[in-house]
Amino acid sequence: MRKTLYSLIAALSCTSIFAGGTIDVSLFGAFPDDNKDDTLAVRAALTQAKKQGATKLVFPKGRYDFHPDAAFERYQFISNNDEGLKRIAFPIDGMKRFEIDGQGSEFLFHGFLSPFTIDNSSDIVLRGFSVDYVRTFHSEGKILAVTDAYADVEIPPEYPYSIENGLLKFHDGNSGKARTLYPVSAMLEFDPIKRETAYQARDYGTGPDIRAEDLGNRHVRILRAKLKGTHGNIFVFGPNHRQVCAIAITDSRNVAVEDVSLYHCGGMGIIGQRSRDLFVRRVQVTPAPHKNRIVSITADATHFVNCGGQVVLEDCLFELQKDDATNVHGIYVRIVSCISPTIVDVKLVHPQQFGFDFIRKGQTLELVKGPALTTYAYPVVKQVERLNKEYTRLTFKESLPQTVEIGDALAAIDNYAALTIRGCTIRGNRARGILLNSRGPTVVENNTFHTAGAAILFEGDARFWYEQAGVSDCVIRSNRFDNCNYGVWGHALIEVGAGIDPTFRTESRYNKNIRITDNTIRFFHPALLSMYSVKGLTFAGNRLEKTEAYPQWKPTAPRFETPDCDDVRIEE
Amino acid sequence: MRKTLYSLIAALSCTSIFAGGTIDVSLFGAFPDDNKDDTLAVRAALTQAKKQGATKLVFPKGRYDFHPDAAFERYQFISNNDEGLKRIAFPIDGMKRFEIDGQGSEFLFHGFLSPFTIDNSSDIVLRGFSVDYVRTFHSEGKILAVTDAYADVEIPPEYPYSIENGLLKFHDGNSGKARTLYPVSAMLEFDPIKRETAYQARDYGTGPDIRAEDLGNRHVRILRAKLKGTHGNIFVFGPNHRQVCAIAITDSRNVAVEDVSLYHCGGMGIIGQRSRDLFVRRVQVTPAPHKNRIVSITADATHFVNCGGQVVLEDCLFELQKDDATNVHGIYVRIVSCISPTIVDVKLVHPQQFGFDFIRKGQTLELVKGPALTTYAYPVVKQVERLNKEYTRLTFKESLPQTVEIGDALAAIDNYAALTIRGCTIRGNRARGILLNSRGPTVVENNTFHTAGAAILFEGDARFWYEQAGVSDCVIRSNRFDNCNYGVWGHALIEVGAGIDPTFRTESRYNKNIRITDNTIRFFHPALLSMYSVKGLTFAGNRLEKTEAYPQWKPTAPRFETPDCDDVRIEE
Repeated sequence: MRKTLYSLIAALSCTSIFAGGTIDVSLFGAFPDDNKDDTLAVRAALTQAKKQGATKLVFPKGRYDFHPDAAFERYQFISNNDEGLKRIAFPIDGMKRFEIDGQGSEFLFHGFLSPFTIDNSSDIVLRGFSVDYVRTFHSEGKILAVTDAYADVEIPPEYPYSIENGLLKFHDGNSGKARTLYPVSAMLEFDPIKRETAYQARDYGTGPDIRAEDLGNRHVRILRAKLKGTHGNIFVFGPNHRQVCAIAITDSRNVAVEDVSLYHCGGMGIIGQRSRDLFVRRVQVTPAPHKNRIVSITADATHFVNCGGQVVLEDCLFELQKDDATNVHGIYVRIVSCISPTIVDVKLVHPQQFGFDFIRKGQTLELVKGPALTTYAYPVVKQVERLNKEYTRLTFKESLPQTVEIGDALAAIDNYAALTIRGCTIRGNRARGILLNSRGPTVVENNTFHTAGAAILFEGDARFWYEQAGVSDCVIRSNRFDNCNYGVWGHALIEVGAGIDPTFRTESRYNKNIRITDNTIRFFHPALLSMYSVKGLTFAGNRLEKTEAYPQWKPTAPRFETPDCDDVRIEE
Repeated sequence: MRKTLYSLIAALSCTSIFAGGTIDVSLFGAFPDDNKDDTLAVRAALTQAKKQGATKLVFPKGRYDFHPDAAFERYQFISNNDEGLKRIAFPIDGMKRFEIDGQGSEFLFHGFLSPFTIDNSSDIVLRGFSVDYVRTFHSEGKILAVTDAYADVEIPPEYPYSIENGLLKFHDGNSGKARTLYPVSAMLEFDPIKRETAYQARDYGTGPDIRAEDLGNRHVRILRAKLKGTHGNIFVFGPNHRQVCAIAITDSRNVAVEDVSLYHCGGMGIIGQRSRDLFVRRVQVTPAPHKNRIVSITADATHFVNCGGQVVLEDCLFELQKDDATNVHGIYVRIVSCISPTIVDVKLVHPQQFGFDFIRKGQTLELVKGPALTTYAYPVVKQVERLNKEYTRLTFKESLPQTVEIGDALAAIDNYAALTIRGCTIRGNRARGILLNSRGPTVVENNTFHTAGAAILFEGDARFWYEQAGVSDCVIRSNRFDNCNYGVWGHALIEVGAGIDPTFRTESRYNKNIRITDNTIRFFHPALLSMYSVKGLTFAGNRLEKTEAYPQWKPTAPRFETPDCDDVRIEE
């Protein structure tokens, strides 16, 4: 830390060394390839940039190391990830018109350190760097043998572990108090030749306690019955948290992430919340090259919650991450108590939504019947009183309808993103491709999908995830679908999975105006559409090509299933 | 929650119902003995009290229940306990001249809910209530049999558990997502007849993973070799955290806790930090009556860190808690980097001190050689820049001595408590009695000690706990010591345990002016004094009575050991 601080002091006492609006990080003591911790230098550079109104921070090309010790700290609630007191290497807070240009540098992180957070800022660009970790948050083991009683794996040295009390514990290789654990929640099999989740592989929920025996020579016997796995494939031990997103964007506008490679992080890659106008261009989510890893990042590549304006994903590669490529949705809170005709208590239900405070005084909300997902009123908020990260008391300007009841939900209606996903490749990752849940105009074009589950899913529910969804204008055109549905996460190539109670599906039309045209669809799994409660569905002008790419797992599945839909036009 | 909120609204719209400065909690919907959650009512009452400047909140006598759901929330760093985002039932923040009178009520807490926090307040009185929990943070099991390979225990229904993956997991009896775990870190044997830790029992560090087999009928076999235990005694499974203190006092002055029973909490009972003038009178730390529990609270009964003015413990009972009765000390930070002659980086070293920010601009500190605990300079702070909960950068007004080096320590010298411990009974708890580490005048008189380890310990170190200590004026008189040292936590009845490197003990005089007079000492263990590096030590006028109360565990221990001390007067 010594050198960095000296440089900081030199720099701060001599601000005339900065030319114009651009700051070079080396002026603060961060030099490439010297194996020193650059966290404090970056922190000082950002402080100085804010102070002098600099518009750009540049990194001479090379490798920079970031350790948590001297990092900025903040308690963060990041939707669909885990809350916590985080250490953050690049805290961008309250900044305007500012760019970070890595100029092709490698940013290498150590321990539980979050790379970027952008809070209350506007006109921000992140460009030209890669993000990777010395020790990944997940671990991997090559499958040697699987029996009814156990599975034997060989764990590469990249994933230090020990067997303690008969349990497999992954850690960072240090010992005693210096040791950091990397606990597990589930196992999933990947195929390293095809670079995708293994055919029909499913998650084995293990929790952090995996019974195991050490067989020596980094061979470990996983003592769990009825595992399935193929010799030579990889068991991935997924982390039991989403603590460490790569880039978290909160309450900001006009943020671009361009020409960035996210090789690893312990949560979502790019997560935007309560923000607008977010642009993700030429971002590669892919396993670090030359590191003998099958998995890239441990959760969704991108994710956007209560975001408005434009959300654009363009010319990106999202592969081998441990969850979907994107999901753009709002959040429902659940009414848990009706205090008076104008006052209710609401709760953020899913623990990864705790602290997601999106309701503001003066805002118009939609009031929704939970099981049907039907909106029946638009109350205006008069007062918001936050009780804690879970509960909030809302007072409305006028009485709610008498039909309001516990279990109904409320959500925002003033912040739907216009979503564009264009020119992206999505493949090999766990679960689905893209989850289209924005009520703004949605265009998905010229992408390539090779996904384990559904390539495209329309979601939303007020019973488990509490994600507000329901498209109103969605175009899916000129994409290439290449033998999707080789995994377990979906019934059809494109499907509705909205949590509408079956008894209400005949009346609900949660999704509207979906046009699927001019796509090239290569498929081995027969089901292409599985949709319900849609008004306005066109499937036309697509080129269909049946293949034998994988064994059939449900050959009897109908090609098109559209119960409880209106205005359906399907032309094969 | 419904009823409470209704009442709140009624109360807030009709403030004229309050007579004078006293508020009755029932006006906010908290009624005794109705099994309803009173958290929100108390929260509203405290808000209203602050608003109207009320001086007292009273509870009609009875039982009140508190659940975490609607509780106030704050991220808290509480020294010698665990940091975290806490739910707090009684948040007293920024209040002046305010009393809470339970009038003999029972406050019953559910889950991980902290009872009281007093922040930035003055002239506060808490009076007339008990604190207990529906589910204790520790668990207990009656010892049935112990062999070289295992121990069998019978776990009462008060401590729900299950065996999962071959591991013993304590929980709250709920299932699925509603279940809360109560994880363990260590086992310790207690004697329920003598109501104390078992003779020479030691902690078995287990971590949260205890291998076990269910034998049915709430009998469990603990699969750990070389345990010792006696049939009929109790194994106490201590929690792996100190998350839930009963009463935490931070940055406050003139706080009194009187006529309060602390039956249980998951951390320290009363912890004061950066505060002054704290009075603890007629406080009982004791296991809840009629609940078949051997342990009271899970950590120290009281504890005071960087507190000044007066600290008074009077007429209290501290028994069967899982750590010392009190400890009054400062905190050292460690110098980890010397940036320039006037700038250093310092670190709070022990994780339970993280976030303990005690250094202020303008403050004079002592600069200490760590291994010797000798002060060699008094630098004045010019600037404080907190990097995060661990690291702070300090700038001093003048250059530090050239002999400053990494590993030296800094501490405050402007806030030593005048400590009085009078009329208290301390017995049966784990570890020691009282830790005397304040440099203010210290008087310990008319107390009764029956402690497993040393009754009185002089501590302090800059290598592990980083607790600043060293008495300068300490009187221990007219106390009754009744067969202490039946446990493993100490060498002698009264001892120095300061972390002074043995090579420096000849020169260090860390403690000064200790007078031990007019005490009655009944003892089976021969060692009464084990002291080093003391200047001024008197042991005179004490009545000594040798007993056979317990077997001898070190019959050859010398009665008085005082190497490296000056001005010693010992009269048997």
